[in-house]
Amino acid sequence: MTRTRFHQGLDDLKQKLLTMGGLAEQAVERSVRAYQSRDTAICEAVLRDEAHINAAEREVDELSIDLLAMQQPMAVDLRFIVACIKINSDIERVGDQAVNIAERVLDMVSHPKSDLNVDIPRMASLAINMVRDALNSFLTADAELARSVLERDDLVDNINREIFEAADFAMTHGVETHRDALDTLIVARNLERVADHATNIAEDVIFWVRGADVRHHAQT
Amino acid sequence: MTRTRFHQGLDDLKQKLLTMGGLAEQAVERSVRAYQSRDTAICEAVLRDEAHINAAEREVDELSIDLLAMQQPMAVDLRFIVACIKINSDIERVGDQAVNIAERVLDMVSHPKSDLNVDIPRMASLAINMVRDALNSFLTADAELARSVLERDDLVDNINREIFEAADFAMTHGVETHRDALDTLIVARNLERVADHATNIAEDVIFWVRGADVRHHAQT
Repeated sequence: MTRTRFHQGLDDLKQKLLTMGGLAEQAVERSVRAYQSRDTAICEAVLRDEAHINAAEREVDELSIDLLAMQQPMAVDLRFIVACIKINSDIERVGDQAVNIAERVLDMVSHPKSDLNVDIPRMASLAINMVRDALNSFLTADAELARSVLERDDLVDNINREIFEAADFAMTHGVETHRDALDTLIVARNLERVADHATNIAEDVIFWVRGADVRHHAQT
Repeated sequence: MTRTRFHQGLDDLKQKLLTMGGLAEQAVERSVRAYQSRDTAICEAVLRDEAHINAAEREVDELSIDLLAMQQPMAVDLRFIVACIKINSDIERVGDQAVNIAERVLDMVSHPKSDLNVDIPRMASLAINMVRDALNSFLTADAELARSVLERDDLVDNINREIFEAADFAMTHGVETHRDALDTLIVARNLERVADHATNIAEDVIFWVRGADVRHHAQT
């Protein structure tokens, strides 16, 4: 019976993390939408909703501790809970990046727009998909999917470097619109960090699933 | 006897984290020294030493799991171990910021130096002191010291904003040296993130010590 309550707690923990992950993913999507449309109302919404993500982070930590205290967890459950604690902090930081992007957009609206030709939406879509797949790999304990997330990190890094150089070039060739190019460069760096956090989450999933696998093999 | 081994393990965990914290702190110091002297050999050393910090991170996670598995920890020990897991990831990311700074310096040496008048060493010293005090508050379970770290975060944020504006201005007024100003702006952002991680560590110390205090009062 206690065991059942414990397992119910693990399910709750997973569900809470996934809900929080959804909020963070949505925050990044909205901040990028705000970037495209220069919509300050969306920016304000992103800034406002950060508190929900932060509150969820504290809840997840507390629930993790409650579960660790509830009974002597088995090794596989222990690794799962530790992975949750680590994933929790990465999800919260994905939300921070959305806030950083929203703040840049708020800066951009008071400066002339550049005609900088960089594909922020594509980069954003890659980074957001990495977060989504990292969370899916967590939901389904899929180390292969987690590994595919790790492989995509270099692609996002490369796009970030391209945007850095393009924005740098634009800044020297359009003094009027240089601030817009600078803000875009920073938005790209923030998206690169979103991808980094997705990578961290994927690594934590592998850490958990691998530990579980090792244990599984030991039992057979 | 087992209890003693467990407590020895907690001490080892703390010691490992502090050693790792020292490495990360040193990495930031060196990267800033490289920034000041434009010394690529120091940059290479920072890039090379990142592997040590990453290896230490994995060790700390594994030791934490071993301790959680060793026996049913009491609530205060549980909060301590969870705080260690969280602090671990922040320390590793302080090391990442040192790498980011070193990479910027490697970029700077191939571009003309600007006469940008911003005080990166002062900002670095504030951020590094925040890391040091956060680690000291962890060593001594000093929530007051941890709180003083939180209070300093705004100061570093303000300096970051000042440097952003100064570098932005310099970029529009010196096309030749704009890249140097841009790299400096990013170095400042990296230092701001070092301060953020120090803040996170301080929050984790408070989370741990407060939990311990609550428990302490409950016992009396």
